[in-house]
Amino acid sequence: MKLNYIAIRVKNMDESLKFYTENLGLKFIEEKSYMPGERVASLIDEGTKQKLNLMYYAEDCKLYTPWKEDGVELDHLSFEVEDAKKTFDELIKGGAGVAWDLVERKTDDGVFAMGFVKDPNGIWIGLRSQSHNKND
Amino acid sequence: MKLNYIAIRVKNMDESLKFYTENLGLKFIEEKSYMPGERVASLIDEGTKQKLNLMYYAEDCKLYTPWKEDGVELDHLSFEVEDAKKTFDELIKGGAGVAWDLVERKTDDGVFAMGFVKDPNGIWIGLRSQSHNKND
Repeated sequence: MKLNYIAIRVKNMDESLKFYTENLGLKFIEEKSYMPGERVASLIDEGTKQKLNLMYYAEDCKLYTPWKEDGVELDHLSFEVEDAKKTFDELIKGGAGVAWDLVERKTDDGVFAMGFVKDPNGIWIGLRSQSHNKND
Repeated sequence: MKLNYIAIRVKNMDESLKFYTENLGLKFIEEKSYMPGERVASLIDEGTKQKLNLMYYAEDCKLYTPWKEDGVELDHLSFEVEDAKKTFDELIKGGAGVAWDLVERKTDDGVFAMGFVKDPNGIWIGLRSQSHNKND
């Protein structure tokens, strides 16, 4: 038994593809369609090997259901970044919504920072970083 | 930038932990809590390295929101298995709901089978297998 990937639904494939590849650095593998009105894009983080599929259903696709903003089954996607404050600010500047404001906390050897932005579908994207002081 | 894991929300942590570890073979790594009323369980597929976190929020947790069955942001989790028909039947027998009935299709060298069951939270779990004839 193998867990291959997790798939999320998107309202607009091109918008979401751009967000996850250009803004969040995932690599596009391929796009397929298994039935009329369906688009499936496969993405991967080549470092951690995590796979994410984006699923788009047109209104005439038999898997289509009306979009609801308030689903809770998907909690968030977690990204580790060099500098969470920097990435957070860049994504907000690029049009992403704020889900949970960035918080910074001093740790023994640097700063831990964490915040959440919203992807084009309202999905929470966690950003976290831990800086390390260069002093001995 | 690294995608660490994807986190899904669960209504009942023990029920979901049992389902994903005992029924679907993921390995439990650890459970943590970062705020009152929150439980976070980390799971991994040691073969494919896919990581899944289960998030539980009690009603007095500040991240709690009422559960809605009809969220669409999470599409499905995809598992590759030895024999999709066998696993599908076992999971249904074990109490999982049917999301999309199992379909089998003859291929050049065997049978491709695919079906979807529902996890304890209604999340679609894809099961697929490809058998290969032993003839030359």
